[in-house]
Amino acid sequence: MSDRRATVRAVLDRVEKEGRTSLTAPECKEICDAYAIPLPKEGLANSADEAAKLAGDIGYPVVMKIVSADILHKTEAGGVLVGVADEAAAKAGFESIIANAKAYKADAKIDGVQVQQMVSGGQEVIVGAVTDPSFGKLVAFGLGGILVEVLKDITFRLAPASKDDALGMLDGIKAAEILKGVRGAAAVDRDALAAIIVNTSELTADFPEIQEIDLNPILADEHGATAVDALVSVDFSPPKEVYRPSQEEIVTAMNRIFNPKAVAVVGASDGEGKIGNSVMKNIINGGYAGELYPINPKADEILGKKAYKSVLDIPGDVDVAVFAVPAKFCVAAMEEVGKKGIPGAIMIPSGFAEVGESELQEELVAMARKYNVRIMGPNIYGFYYTPANLCATFCTPYDVKGKAALSSQSGGVGMSIIGFSRSTKMGVSAIVGLGNKSDLDEDDLLIYFEQDPNTDVIAMHAEDLKDGRSFAEVAERVSKKKPVVMLKAGRTQLGAKAAASHTGALAGNDKIYDDVLRASGVIRAYALNDLLQFARGLPILPTPKGENIVIITGAGGSGVLLSDACVDAGLSLMKFPQDLDEAFKQYIPPFGASGNPVDITGGEPPTTYEKTIKLGLEDDRIHSLILGYWHTIITPPMVFAELCARVVQEARDKGIDKPVVASLVGDVEVEEASEYLYERGIVACPYTAELPVAILGAKYQWARGAGLL
Amino acid sequence: MSDRRATVRAVLDRVEKEGRTSLTAPECKEICDAYAIPLPKEGLANSADEAAKLAGDIGYPVVMKIVSADILHKTEAGGVLVGVADEAAAKAGFESIIANAKAYKADAKIDGVQVQQMVSGGQEVIVGAVTDPSFGKLVAFGLGGILVEVLKDITFRLAPASKDDALGMLDGIKAAEILKGVRGAAAVDRDALAAIIVNTSELTADFPEIQEIDLNPILADEHGATAVDALVSVDFSPPKEVYRPSQEEIVTAMNRIFNPKAVAVVGASDGEGKIGNSVMKNIINGGYAGELYPINPKADEILGKKAYKSVLDIPGDVDVAVFAVPAKFCVAAMEEVGKKGIPGAIMIPSGFAEVGESELQEELVAMARKYNVRIMGPNIYGFYYTPANLCATFCTPYDVKGKAALSSQSGGVGMSIIGFSRSTKMGVSAIVGLGNKSDLDEDDLLIYFEQDPNTDVIAMHAEDLKDGRSFAEVAERVSKKKPVVMLKAGRTQLGAKAAASHTGALAGNDKIYDDVLRASGVIRAYALNDLLQFARGLPILPTPKGENIVIITGAGGSGVLLSDACVDAGLSLMKFPQDLDEAFKQYIPPFGASGNPVDITGGEPPTTYEKTIKLGLEDDRIHSLILGYWHTIITPPMVFAELCARVVQEARDKGIDKPVVASLVGDVEVEEASEYLYERGIVACPYTAELPVAILGAKYQWARGAGLL
Repeated sequence: MSDRRATVRAVLDRVEKEGRTSLTAPECKEICDAYAIPLPKEGLANSADEAAKLAGDIGYPVVMKIVSADILHKTEAGGVLVGVADEAAAKAGFESIIANAKAYKADAKIDGVQVQQMVSGGQEVIVGAVTDPSFGKLVAFGLGGILVEVLKDITFRLAPASKDDALGMLDGIKAAEILKGVRGAAAVDRDALAAIIVNTSELTADFPEIQEIDLNPILADEHGATAVDALVSVDFSPPKEVYRPSQEEIVTAMNRIFNPKAVAVVGASDGEGKIGNSVMKNIINGGYAGELYPINPKADEILGKKAYKSVLDIPGDVDVAVFAVPAKFCVAAMEEVGKKGIPGAIMIPSGFAEVGESELQEELVAMARKYNVRIMGPNIYGFYYTPANLCATFCTPYDVKGKAALSSQSGGVGMSIIGFSRSTKMGVSAIVGLGNKSDLDEDDLLIYFEQDPNTDVIAMHAEDLKDGRSFAEVAERVSKKKPVVMLKAGRTQLGAKAAASHTGALAGNDKIYDDVLRASGVIRAYALNDLLQFARGLPILPTPKGENIVIITGAGGSGVLLSDACVDAGLSLMKFPQDLDEAFKQYIPPFGASGNPVDITGGEPPTTYEKTIKLGLEDDRIHSLILGYWHTIITPPMVFAELCARVVQEARDKGIDKPVVASLVGDVEVEEASEYLYERGIVACPYTAELPVAILGAKYQWARGAGLL
Repeated sequence: MSDRRATVRAVLDRVEKEGRTSLTAPECKEICDAYAIPLPKEGLANSADEAAKLAGDIGYPVVMKIVSADILHKTEAGGVLVGVADEAAAKAGFESIIANAKAYKADAKIDGVQVQQMVSGGQEVIVGAVTDPSFGKLVAFGLGGILVEVLKDITFRLAPASKDDALGMLDGIKAAEILKGVRGAAAVDRDALAAIIVNTSELTADFPEIQEIDLNPILADEHGATAVDALVSVDFSPPKEVYRPSQEEIVTAMNRIFNPKAVAVVGASDGEGKIGNSVMKNIINGGYAGELYPINPKADEILGKKAYKSVLDIPGDVDVAVFAVPAKFCVAAMEEVGKKGIPGAIMIPSGFAEVGESELQEELVAMARKYNVRIMGPNIYGFYYTPANLCATFCTPYDVKGKAALSSQSGGVGMSIIGFSRSTKMGVSAIVGLGNKSDLDEDDLLIYFEQDPNTDVIAMHAEDLKDGRSFAEVAERVSKKKPVVMLKAGRTQLGAKAAASHTGALAGNDKIYDDVLRASGVIRAYALNDLLQFARGLPILPTPKGENIVIITGAGGSGVLLSDACVDAGLSLMKFPQDLDEAFKQYIPPFGASGNPVDITGGEPPTTYEKTIKLGLEDDRIHSLILGYWHTIITPPMVFAELCARVVQEARDKGIDKPVVASLVGDVEVEEASEYLYERGIVACPYTAELPVAILGAKYQWARGAGLL
């Protein structure tokens, strides 16, 4: 144990022994000193002379405070003096504080008078640490003062935080400019603040029993930063254990679940409308080519497949058991599944924690753990994995192969994924229902999809994260390789309340989710439709090679809306060097606007679109194109779509692959043209300027987070 | 002229005579005094004794400052003393300031030393006035201090502002809570601040030559507010004249344009693909029943209609001339239109200001004014008015009648309106292109649609407002009767740049647009798709009678997303009284969540939806319903749609008409179900929780602004 840890350990052991839940000021000072968190210099005086000596060493002015466990309200007791200016005042101050304390409470046990350096001036900031049920230890940073308290300008990161994290936090608050010095004020000492953030995060991370730390206010100026006050609260109850298999175990099990050689359907049925019948039909009609074993004690054959009374009767190995029996039979069936050595159970049945039957669910999980069976669900629609032609679900089959893997905690959202996919012909690798998340959760899916060559983007709906810390850690790694999009429902106070009553899950503070997900490189969708649209669009856009974005538009009005949308999506328009401006201008009418957006004007023939798009693709200073098409008689929608797809393909054939998105405004033919373009790798949307730009913005957000830009 | 006006007039006359563009401190004090804007007490001293006398009258401490037009940087010149505490200091201060000034600039003309009340403490705020090219005089309010400067927390209203406006401004800043007193601080004197806002707004409104006023900082506490410093700048150039016919004239002309008995097409043509041919065909195929006169000097008949060489040759009256000739012929044709007494010219041709031909456009407008012809355009697609079966446009006809009137400044956006309308079967009364807005603009349309019984909602796309003040004034009146929605493009700095290069229009400060439009009751759409969706949804929703909103959902997951969406849309969920909670609970499974959202759970039959929706409609404490439908085998999409439409219709038959919106999640059948519901007066959207709630939110925003809630 390092020295600093040993120091804190000793303090905490004493606090625990005394049954306290918070530290005294001297204890706070001691552990902050150990972790190099600067607090005002101070000492405890037991006489007027000692007080004067201490004050002289610290330097005047000083603050003096009574120290007594029996006096909680120091100010009321006349136990605080501020701005004590010299030796005489220090001596007199000591006497008066002791006298006041005795007058306030005659039998108070008095430890002495604390003499403290008086810190003043500089910018008020706050650093703190909190313990979140899902994310565990977090460090917080914000500006201090009443105004910021009203505006809630604060940001969080997982603890321990690195120096980079800490510097990112300084830049991450809305009023970040203040710290850089405004109106001639000097910038605060960023290194000093970052060090406090890092040290506070390490302190809380090193000691699970530290629940909260509050350094408020910290006064920061160009020479450094000092916390004026520190509060530390502790909780010595043992932390709950988290089940977390190794990554290798997860991948092995998930690979068998997603690519099974044999599937058993527990509760398979011939009865039309029964879940066990729908599941069988979907697996068969979906084109699954492996072995399929219906399990039903009362049947010999179901839908042409030989039926077994129990999974134990199946001759060969089985990788997945899909459950379609009532909840009350599941534990017994799970025991057989376990004994058979089946690694994955798809628990479609409802009737568990979501209806208050938490004990039954725990029993089920305990049985599965005993035999090392991973559970998906319960209370789910099942899952789809198109590379294996597997529709292990009671919903309708879906077979459009593609690179988007989607998951949902809620069945309703899952149905939306299926409907939207079918409606837009979105190519998917997987659609997974997570339901009650009794075992498998978003982390497991991330770990599987990370190494799945059939998946290029991972889009998830979640109402809570069982283990937000683990998710964030995995997501940080995975998002370096593939975009991870999350619709975190229960964002708002109202929404969070509904989440709590729906799943019994504790919805976290949304600002924590926002900061931690962002820091982990996760793209957050704020609407269901955005989740779906990002899942559809991100895989078809190539990774941009730089930030230079050019808008080429036939409608000046679209140019304006597309520019607005760029700002909203965090994109910036390339400032043209003169030669590029001139190069574009040679193709557009003399009254067309100069610069970016390139406004080719409305009456132009297809060749103008073609030449300008080609120029945009071939000039390697330009990294992405946003097209604004305007329906005219001279360039009808499908003419535009065909030329655009052709020019983009020609460039790709030459090795030029840039993100191209398009907004198509016009009569209904623009819908067909948009579909045509989408199928050819150009994100195109009718009647909206905002959506294609938002999708491009999500791609950029990912690429930046992954360090590719 | 009132006393206060006379006082200011005299000051301004002197400033103008002296050729200055700003007022001196004593002049600022004089006009602020006249308008009861409290500045520190002060006076001018010409001797040390006078200084001491003044300071004694004002009360110590005081501030002393040199007054000399020759000394701009008072502090540098040693000409400012702060915190002058007593008579001796005042006398000595006078002498030292005069000596310093002489040392600084020997030949400076010195007027004396200003002795000023020293104001300190309290909350810093700012009140100001600015002159916007579109909105004219505006008053501004914000919190003072560096932090707020960084966060740009400021709000604007048209000047003059009422006391209600002013109180709304105090509540309208992000940090409004500060003013109400936080952490034990007293609330500031709201009446005193409101009075300063009102008086400043009246001062700027009374005197067009006052360009800017800056009262910064104002110190406000519970006892009042005083402006520490005032700056006033002036501009005596004559304001440009604005053409604005009377409301009666506007309505008369617009009525003839929208409901013409006879239409002439100037430049009508037999040539396929020509604009003059498309316009003729669209008017004929659109089913227009009035007289139609093609004008073409070279034809006897066009599309079966007798052609005329000139509008002057037409035997009867004509209400509208649609222009389809090249720009260079338009002025001459306009003269004939004027002589014929035609009140409206639809100027489809481009080739005017948008391509730099501003002079030609001015010539056209001058000719039209001469004969009192109102111009729509130029550079437009034309317009549609379905009640008259009139498609005066070169685009394709559109005939789905309904209550939404839409307009666009840009042709591209106009085409989107047409495509979206056709795709969603949106019922419209009018679609109008405004293009260069050489004459008719959004105000004129508002005035027409205000009294048009065929229009229930007005949705506009604009890149600028030629006369924002007039628009805001008209909109404030109209929005009390009908929702007015605006997509103001060029919102952001990037977008505004593109707008400027597109139309030559100066895009206003977006915060000004935001505040003024909101204060006028205009619902602002921030995306093209929102404009279209609001236009489609608002007319079919009845006006809500209160704020009590209930979510009834079959998917708990939708309940969470719908709750999130409610917060985003400014809606709040009704807190159930116990009897209502129990009433809902009798219909839902025991494990269904209690309270609002009402989670009927996923496996329920149609009757559960039916009973709960019915309860929601019939309990008159509930004012609006948000439904979350989840596709299941037991309640398929069309079964839900039919029962829902029926229950809502049964309630309407009993006189119960509440807004009902629905989010449908499921497989593609939910698209058909959503359409079915929309056609029956229920705003229903597939694959999204956010959109139906946003539409309901817009309806509430309107109803609140119109004083109906």
